[in-house]
Amino acid sequence: MTKSFGSDNHAGAHEAVLRMLATANEGDTHGYGDDPWTERVSQDLCARFGAADTYFVFNGTGANVVGLSLLVRPYEAVICAESAHLNTDECGAPERLLGSKLLTVATLDGKLTPDLVATRLVGLGDEHRAQPRAVCITQATELGTCYSLAELEALGEFCRTHQLRLYVDGARLANAAAYLGCSLAELAAQADVLSFGGTKNGAVAAEAVIVMNPDLTGVRYQRKQLLQLGSKMRFFAAQFAGLLENETWLGNAAQANLMARRLSAGLRDLGITIRYPVESNGVFAVLDPRLIEPLQREWGFYVWDEPNVVRLMTAFDTTPGDVDAFLASLREAALSHV
Amino acid sequence: MTKSFGSDNHAGAHEAVLRMLATANEGDTHGYGDDPWTERVSQDLCARFGAADTYFVFNGTGANVVGLSLLVRPYEAVICAESAHLNTDECGAPERLLGSKLLTVATLDGKLTPDLVATRLVGLGDEHRAQPRAVCITQATELGTCYSLAELEALGEFCRTHQLRLYVDGARLANAAAYLGCSLAELAAQADVLSFGGTKNGAVAAEAVIVMNPDLTGVRYQRKQLLQLGSKMRFFAAQFAGLLENETWLGNAAQANLMARRLSAGLRDLGITIRYPVESNGVFAVLDPRLIEPLQREWGFYVWDEPNVVRLMTAFDTTPGDVDAFLASLREAALSHV
Amino acid sequence: MTKSFGSDNHAGAHEAVLRMLATANEGDTHGYGDDPWTERVSQDLCARFGAADTYFVFNGTGANVVGLSLLVRPYEAVICAESAHLNTDECGAPERLLGSKLLTVATLDGKLTPDLVATRLVGLGDEHRAQPRAVCITQATELGTCYSLAELEALGEFCRTHQLRLYVDGARLANAAAYLGCSLAELAAQADVLSFGGTKNGAVAAEAVIVMNPDLTGVRYQRKQLLQLGSKMRFFAAQFAGLLENETWLGNAAQANLMARRLSAGLRDLGITIRYPVESNGVFAVLDPRLIEPLQREWGFYVWDEPNVVRLMTAFDTTPGDVDAFLASLREAALSHV
Amino acid sequence: MTKSFGSDNHAGAHEAVLRMLATANEGDTHGYGDDPWTERVSQDLCARFGAADTYFVFNGTGANVVGLSLLVRPYEAVICAESAHLNTDECGAPERLLGSKLLTVATLDGKLTPDLVATRLVGLGDEHRAQPRAVCITQATELGTCYSLAELEALGEFCRTHQLRLYVDGARLANAAAYLGCSLAELAAQADVLSFGGTKNGAVAAEAVIVMNPDLTGVRYQRKQLLQLGSKMRFFAAQFAGLLENETWLGNAAQANLMARRLSAGLRDLGITIRYPVESNGVFAVLDPRLIEPLQREWGFYVWDEPNVVRLMTAFDTTPGDVDAFLASLREAALSHV
Repeated sequence: MTKSFGSDNHAGAHEAVLRMLATANEGDTHGYGDDPWTERVSQDLCARFGAADTYFVFNGTGANVVGLSLLVRPYEAVICAESAHLNTDECGAPERLLGSKLLTVATLDGKLTPDLVATRLVGLGDEHRAQPRAVCITQATELGTCYSLAELEALGEFCRTHQLRLYVDGARLANAAAYLGCSLAELAAQADVLSFGGTKNGAVAAEAVIVMNPDLTGVRYQRKQLLQLGSKMRFFAAQFAGLLENETWLGNAAQANLMARRLSAGLRDLGITIRYPVESNGVFAVLDPRLIEPLQREWGFYVWDEPNVVRLMTAFDTTPGDVDAFLASLREAALSHV
Repeated sequence: MTKSFGSDNHAGAHEAVLRMLATANEGDTHGYGDDPWTERVSQDLCARFGAADTYFVFNGTGANVVGLSLLVRPYEAVICAESAHLNTDECGAPERLLGSKLLTVATLDGKLTPDLVATRLVGLGDEHRAQPRAVCITQATELGTCYSLAELEALGEFCRTHQLRLYVDGARLANAAAYLGCSLAELAAQADVLSFGGTKNGAVAAEAVIVMNPDLTGVRYQRKQLLQLGSKMRFFAAQFAGLLENETWLGNAAQANLMARRLSAGLRDLGITIRYPVESNGVFAVLDPRLIEPLQREWGFYVWDEPNVVRLMTAFDTTPGDVDAFLASLREAALSHV
Repeated sequence: MTKSFGSDNHAGAHEAVLRMLATANEGDTHGYGDDPWTERVSQDLCARFGAADTYFVFNGTGANVVGLSLLVRPYEAVICAESAHLNTDECGAPERLLGSKLLTVATLDGKLTPDLVATRLVGLGDEHRAQPRAVCITQATELGTCYSLAELEALGEFCRTHQLRLYVDGARLANAAAYLGCSLAELAAQADVLSFGGTKNGAVAAEAVIVMNPDLTGVRYQRKQLLQLGSKMRFFAAQFAGLLENETWLGNAAQANLMARRLSAGLRDLGITIRYPVESNGVFAVLDPRLIEPLQREWGFYVWDEPNVVRLMTAFDTTPGDVDAFLASLREAALSHV
Repeated sequence: MTKSFGSDNHAGAHEAVLRMLATANEGDTHGYGDDPWTERVSQDLCARFGAADTYFVFNGTGANVVGLSLLVRPYEAVICAESAHLNTDECGAPERLLGSKLLTVATLDGKLTPDLVATRLVGLGDEHRAQPRAVCITQATELGTCYSLAELEALGEFCRTHQLRLYVDGARLANAAAYLGCSLAELAAQADVLSFGGTKNGAVAAEAVIVMNPDLTGVRYQRKQLLQLGSKMRFFAAQFAGLLENETWLGNAAQANLMARRLSAGLRDLGITIRYPVESNGVFAVLDPRLIEPLQREWGFYVWDEPNVVRLMTAFDTTPGDVDAFLASLREAALSHV
């Protein structure tokens, strides 16, 4: 396979992650997080985020469900964008496992705003309606855009005013940090809970649930009952250790973002329309439908919500050569259809 | 830490597992199992088990819940031993995630028998009672015992006669295979679904759900909705590839079993009572309560269901030296209390 | 209170229902449906619907959740109109109790069509998406419209072609039967399961789950586990006996429908816009916002989804005098605002 | 059918209940509890119980699940007697609908004690174990016994000391009040939530959830989402109005209790062993197995947990004549087997 532009999870793991797995594989430790690796890396993450506590889990859907389990009871609803991973790509896990309804909002760019959230604040106090209680945003969004710190503040302020809790799906939080040039603490400041994705950033499989609001209880039980407690926990901490060491996580995200910008610039040079602002590692391009299938075979990307819109994802290990080769492929395919 | 006798998950990962992770980390692949590693290792496991299909998941609780989700509707109950991990150590995950009641049976040695199962076959057809539908056994059991092939056949026959489905929690299936000297296919022959544990056998974190009954549907959706679908699936397949290569899994299990026998023999030589037949890698020993706490500090084991019974687990990397050192420690502690 | 136009459940019970409760209150019977009343009325309903079986439950939300529990597993989704009671007025019960996602479709008149259903048939076979499995329609709809038999046939045909199951929320099925002038069997012919509402038709509290598809199993257990099994079941059967006797159910529905037509005609005469075709017992009228609150106080109706649209419901006991009094009230209020 | 001794729900409804249904059937009211009947009867019940609030529901299982939904999160467990209705007769509803594990305790007489509860207070703080959080007792118990006020106080004290919440399944609370000669407030004083059963006391179908602890929130949403909200709520309030009027509830319970005592005295006179103290309206008698089936056909009672133990229930409308006829029947049957 050439470098895939299909997903940032088509990439393998960063060498620092594998190296740290090997380092952590020394001697015995207690399981389930009662080990020095978990302690050290959790503390590191808590310090970076200004968090009350940090819990490692297996995957992004797991992080979202565990995170939201702290914020809603079953009769309380979660407001999210129609395009949210929570809504489109989790096979109904939130509904099944939390019992909660998702109240979705159509957005132009994957981002909620106070005004959009407000459209779902209906039926408050009406026992026939699931009661809006949490807002779930994705940072960076599924459409490659990022919430600015000002946008986050506006949402946070809105949530506090309306007794709503804010959850941030941070499967690509690193990409947002790299794009916005801000700290993890700044990104997390408005949230009650957020996830911090390791997998798309170069881990084998590791995500963290970052609990900002110290009043939230029961996290360890929710994690266990929701099937997200690993026994050899040190290895999940170690993956983050690999990513945090030398700020590899930020370099990885910055590289993916840079390659997305290079890609979108190249596409624009070819006269191709780009759908959303390229603010992380995803590029949504409007392609001549005749080109899609042949290119897909080689480059492994997906058609998005319209038949002529494709999603192109870069990863921590995408190189300028990969991007240029893809653009050359595209040019060639386009010529053959002139 | 000296070698822990606390749990087989206190051990790290086998070198073949880490090596195979590195090998799998080459180039890009599709995610979620659509990759050559997953295909190859799944096929290998299917062939070994005589299975319809194989699905990798994150942990043992996840494997159990996904496996049972194929067998019961919420009003159907699962019969299991009181001592079953499903009942004691999953924080109520089966109840929450399946909606099903567990009907527990007290056992002498962790093993169900047709007669014991029959005690819970009451209220059939009575809409007020959760309807017994699946039987869950653990092989090797949580008490270190193994079902013989004849015992499995008797249970399988009983289940078929009573329209019950059989699930095998195989978190330590390898240890049972090593003890019984039989094939995985023989161990699986009676089951509708079983799990095959990698983690306790030397993986970082990897379990497989083995579907024997080809009529069972929806596995992929259950796995996803139950938070057990990894994106970079090749790495979960690769862990099993490492364990299957050169039959490392069997060697690992045999070594753990051998060390448990050495340990129990040594304990018996010291006049210590052993609670259950030592048929896998767990030894339950009745210790003078005064010895427990000091020894625990060094050797990290757990007190089991009675204050003077401790569980001592060996792992794939436990050495004769570890066992002998533990026995020496114990002798020394005992002497100081004479 | 004057006659309420707020809801058909603001009405009391029909005298035949109360009379039959008294009649049923003679001697002892077995509980939970093992009594002659339940047997007789169930058989009557089965014969009328051409159904495999009939189960009495407490309320409409209960009927919907029990009915759908027969049709979907948790990873399977239910397609319904955005305006469906299932989606808007059940406080997330379907999500919590079935674990299933609702896939909603915006409609012009509360009615799904094959084309509208088709818009949600995406992601089939994709494990990340909840899999569309059931279609839920309401007959008569929440907006007072009815599916014609031809429309039902088209939906039924579409469902069969696409392996979808059809559930009909028949909280106001009687009103549809009265409007369409067809039999219950004709209304039910396309459905796998439907509910038949007694409460809005004149019962104290009684709904029936009508199972058309004889392959569906586990209904009794689902009803019990979902809290919908009454102990003194004869009284629920008796309520239906009251409604079925002398075809009271049909007369009740016809009267409510007739009053809705009288009301809409009167409103149109006053130059008031009616939102949807008046095909059952609901009238959605666009009122001058200044009139709404004063009228509401007296007539107890609700503002619907827009600030100037009100829902006016008639009931089995609404009289021409009630309608005319309401219209007079409205005229008077309007004059005071000229 | 002769008078049934099978269940107190084999009886019909008390005339006061039917009369009050008719009285309530006058004019229109708002639905879902916003009506004068609900307001008045709720206030009456709150005053009698010293409760924060009262919510009418459909049946006993519904009351139990709604009540407990206020007390536990899914990872929290409910401690109850093995013989509790919650455990044996609700088809797994608590597990499915709350997601919570039941921790059952064997009892001699259906009653929990602090010592028995303490046996399940294990694994506290251990994330692998469902965390004990609520205690559910039944008053009067399923075995016909009653907790004395002193026993209730001891349990309440124990619960407060151990941060446990107390739920009382009061499906037969009236019988306990009659037996103990105490007020409803005294019976409820230790509880966070309890149910107050109307159905077995002479209602058609009506139970109340009595919330004692004013800090508990979300009751209305839980009731709705758990399918227990009736639309024509006045009729559920009215049933209780009928029972409360002239203290009919207490007279009904006293009559049932008296008949149980007459029955047990008669049985003892025949040399028949009575299993549990007869403290409410249930008598558990050890019968010659040859007598059971013939008598069952006429008197509709059930064999209990052992093949020669039958449960005989009296109801509000059981007469001395009924009891004497049953005893005569038994004598006759016994003679034919001498």
